[in-house]
Amino acid sequence: MVVGIKRLAVLGSTGSIGRQTLEIARAFPERFRVEGLAAGKNLDLLKKQINEFKPRFVSYIKTQKSETGCEIISLEEMASHPDIDTVVIATAGTAGLGAALAAAKAGKTIALANKESLVAAGEIITSAVKKSSARIIPVDSEHSAIFQCLQGEKQSPRRIILTASGGPFRTYTNKQMAGITVEQALAHPSWKMGRKVTIDSATLMNKGLEVIEAHWLFNMPIDSVTVLVHPQSIVHSMVEFADGSVKAQLSRPDMRLPIQYALTYPDRLENKALPAIEWSHFKDLTFEQPDTERFPCLALGVEAGKAGGTKPAALCGADEAAVELFLAGRIGFTDIPRLISGAMQKHVNKLHPSLEDIEEAGREAREKALGMAGVGK
Amino acid sequence: MVVGIKRLAVLGSTGSIGRQTLEIARAFPERFRVEGLAAGKNLDLLKKQINEFKPRFVSYIKTQKSETGCEIISLEEMASHPDIDTVVIATAGTAGLGAALAAAKAGKTIALANKESLVAAGEIITSAVKKSSARIIPVDSEHSAIFQCLQGEKQSPRRIILTASGGPFRTYTNKQMAGITVEQALAHPSWKMGRKVTIDSATLMNKGLEVIEAHWLFNMPIDSVTVLVHPQSIVHSMVEFADGSVKAQLSRPDMRLPIQYALTYPDRLENKALPAIEWSHFKDLTFEQPDTERFPCLALGVEAGKAGGTKPAALCGADEAAVELFLAGRIGFTDIPRLISGAMQKHVNKLHPSLEDIEEAGREAREKALGMAGVGK
Repeated sequence: MVVGIKRLAVLGSTGSIGRQTLEIARAFPERFRVEGLAAGKNLDLLKKQINEFKPRFVSYIKTQKSETGCEIISLEEMASHPDIDTVVIATAGTAGLGAALAAAKAGKTIALANKESLVAAGEIITSAVKKSSARIIPVDSEHSAIFQCLQGEKQSPRRIILTASGGPFRTYTNKQMAGITVEQALAHPSWKMGRKVTIDSATLMNKGLEVIEAHWLFNMPIDSVTVLVHPQSIVHSMVEFADGSVKAQLSRPDMRLPIQYALTYPDRLENKALPAIEWSHFKDLTFEQPDTERFPCLALGVEAGKAGGTKPAALCGADEAAVELFLAGRIGFTDIPRLISGAMQKHVNKLHPSLEDIEEAGREAREKALGMAGVGK
Repeated sequence: MVVGIKRLAVLGSTGSIGRQTLEIARAFPERFRVEGLAAGKNLDLLKKQINEFKPRFVSYIKTQKSETGCEIISLEEMASHPDIDTVVIATAGTAGLGAALAAAKAGKTIALANKESLVAAGEIITSAVKKSSARIIPVDSEHSAIFQCLQGEKQSPRRIILTASGGPFRTYTNKQMAGITVEQALAHPSWKMGRKVTIDSATLMNKGLEVIEAHWLFNMPIDSVTVLVHPQSIVHSMVEFADGSVKAQLSRPDMRLPIQYALTYPDRLENKALPAIEWSHFKDLTFEQPDTERFPCLALGVEAGKAGGTKPAALCGADEAAVELFLAGRIGFTDIPRLISGAMQKHVNKLHPSLEDIEEAGREAREKALGMAGVGK
């Protein structure tokens, strides 16, 4: 099989997904050339990565050309550069929004790990994708699972069933929820992820965002995207078709698999570094319905998805602020949904928003959430 | 969507799969026209079916044209007739072998429910399929699941995981196994099927045959087809790819779904008659390794599959005889593997056999099994 070398830009290269993306690129040097690296912090690691991969382009907030020896360009320039084929968007929060849109407009293959950009600006990004030759291949394990299950199917599914691990507090009582520490919330039972997404997983906000992400990625009504809690994190999602047949994708919880699939799609490559699945991993697979009373963030996500417009962007902004406050020890765990809900209630929704509307909605909701916690700008 | 009418021949129309096939044909009159019906017994039901579907061709051992008003032709003629598009092979045992081969040579779409024909003559049938424009779409729920999971995949899988309900005696001790009655063996916990396949499910011989069937259908080494017991019968099989990703197909255990899929492939049609899956159906999915000590038929099947040649045909012949004897109350449940094993040991294997070799091997093994039970020709 002769395959041309794909030239990658990795946005968010020093984060959890970015580092694992570089692991895959390192494993298949005949397939991938890392041409661009972009990071927002952790200059030390970025320098090491530059040293190893020798990219042509670098983007880093405070870096000068002299320091890296590479061409310094903006995220948007990197994401749309003619010499880049595949843009891996693994930045945190809504920081990758502009880059995602630039890549979509430029017709790139977008390996999308950053759900917030699609949640906040799904309408704009998917409409740009439709107008160009761009395509989005999801990196999120759930959406990768759905994407894999849809291969070869002619028709849209009847229903998407997103699975959720349920996070570390799945079995907590309301009383226990109140006393959750940052350390507990960062100890995810099945996935190793970045801090923001780990907290979002603990509140189930992550699943709320994923419902909206699935809505845009697979052109499905929000009501046709359901959530089931599956603590073993082996079934990464399921798809139900018109005839009632369901397909599921299973693997051990390791982000390198969906990352590799997004990069090698439609091929699948053997990679000894990826953990093999044994029969004992699916010895006992359980599923339960999520409890939106104890985990109101899931309901907030679904609600924002149904409302559309700038609501999901506001949700992202408020959530980013609330998670930061929680991680900083400024608010408790159950304050997260309280702050987000408050910010959402005050948000005036605007349908079919521009990118500026979206950015403004995020900023505004963020400030409202901070304000509610007694933190100024 | 404009789709031409498919002209069906249903071989084995009065059996369990045949009747359910006609249910699907009845549900979509704009898609299917039943042009041929063939049955080996149950003339009363065949007459009713003829009356309803008004086929052009009928095949029935003792029927004359005058009795049915249709053209009486042989199974082989029907399976290869130019006016037939899709041949549903739902005959029991090895009776459909000649028809399957005729359909393969004539380039038909073969909806294959009869696993014995592929088990016994896999090499001949798949080689005929390769030379013509024929294609086999499996109807067995497990192989339909695998077929569905392989859609859109460019590469062969690394492994196939066939699931087995485990049958009604999954948790029986050796001592309990000895006392099993015909009635108990016919009471399958999750599937409603014909008598032969129900007994084969209880002994796990069905799964042994399915390993060989999967080997031929999907061009997989026998060693790459593994079996897991899954008592809930919701996951119908799984496929593992080179990158370690696994796809599974799930639905409620109802043969009408794989039958419909085989007939409408690559489309999927909504059919209110098919049972919808609810989240509670996959609340708790368990998997365990099969016990080939208590269920030696599975090991006998795998062994015959590895040996190849006429061994699988001999296996089918011996199994047919043993199951008939058990159903007639002539031997006990644990005598089934004993008889088959004895007949297999005496069989002299012939590699790359002709159709005659295969038929002879089946007959011979059948006689040996009957002889061991003290039953003459």
